[in-house]
Amino acid sequence: MDRLFTFFAGNDGAWQVLDARTVVGEPVPGCERVDVVQGNPGPMPDGTAWVLRGVTSYLRYTTGEEQAALAAIQPVLGRPEACCAALIPIRKSAAWWALPQDQRRDILEDQSQHIRTGMHYLPAVARRLHHSRDLDEPFDFLTWFEFAPADAAAFDDLLAALRASAEWAYVEREAELRLLRIH
Amino acid sequence: MDRLFTFFAGNDGAWQVLDARTVVGEPVPGCERVDVVQGNPGPMPDGTAWVLRGVTSYLRYTTGEEQAALAAIQPVLGRPEACCAALIPIRKSAAWWALPQDQRRDILEDQSQHIRTGMHYLPAVARRLHHSRDLDEPFDFLTWFEFAPADAAAFDDLLAALRASAEWAYVEREAELRLLRIH
Repeated sequence: MDRLFTFFAGNDGAWQVLDARTVVGEPVPGCERVDVVQGNPGPMPDGTAWVLRGVTSYLRYTTGEEQAALAAIQPVLGRPEACCAALIPIRKSAAWWALPQDQRRDILEDQSQHIRTGMHYLPAVARRLHHSRDLDEPFDFLTWFEFAPADAAAFDDLLAALRASAEWAYVEREAELRLLRIH
Repeated sequence: MDRLFTFFAGNDGAWQVLDARTVVGEPVPGCERVDVVQGNPGPMPDGTAWVLRGVTSYLRYTTGEEQAALAAIQPVLGRPEACCAALIPIRKSAAWWALPQDQRRDILEDQSQHIRTGMHYLPAVARRLHHSRDLDEPFDFLTWFEFAPADAAAFDDLLAALRASAEWAYVEREAELRLLRIH
């Protein structure tokens, strides 16, 4: 299944952990490296500290107009200059998931400008969203970002804007790993 | 994970298969019985012909107004008189999943009245929707219905109305199992 991505944290992997912190809720155990495997993850590597899994999926909130605007400027992952990454696992509260679709969309975009805010940081910041909630995982989403070192401060601004939004009142667990590509 | 439901088809189980047919796409192998297991499914029973899995999840299209109207009249599963059931596995096309949220909602409800049509058959027909697409399953959805024998003809009308809708042009695989509770 090529939409499945597995994040192995341990002593080995393509990404060196520069910083790992708990934003809210239960901490994620520390590690030195992270590896990202698409599709069948194979056996768990020796020394694995933790594993998180998620699948890329269809757009849950984005309108056609927003999708077209995003498609015109969003960059791909794997750009040679984008050697900085962030992995941000998030779990939202039961209250969020109990809301109907129109109210979640209202909070996410009309109140919080989640999509619009993200667009201000394009094409600098590449992003891939993985859904984990239906896989019996500890988080609902794993978002992976890639950007060049010169855009790291802008990326911090993006995170600060999202975390100050009405939507984030529904985030009950969040961690942040900052990474550097080493091979 | 109590949102996970596993459907075991074989020679044993609480539901006798009265009829099984392929609506569109590749057939599902025949079986005599179906059993439904919530949570950890345990080992696969001997004689299992096939297994389908899905998780109940949050509402992807329903508005707050629709949710309130549904909540006021939708019945629970397991009513003693509702000894008839149907399991309808469906897979939608890649074209459907590539549509943005607002266009899928437009097709599902504004053009096809999926939610409104279902409401006409409440409280006769109880329903539980299981999502399978992100679990690497052969179908995207497994819908389970329960109703009394006297409502079987009304249930046929519900299926006919949905299958005649614009939304169903995106259904590329569909099967239908009609079942009778035997214990």
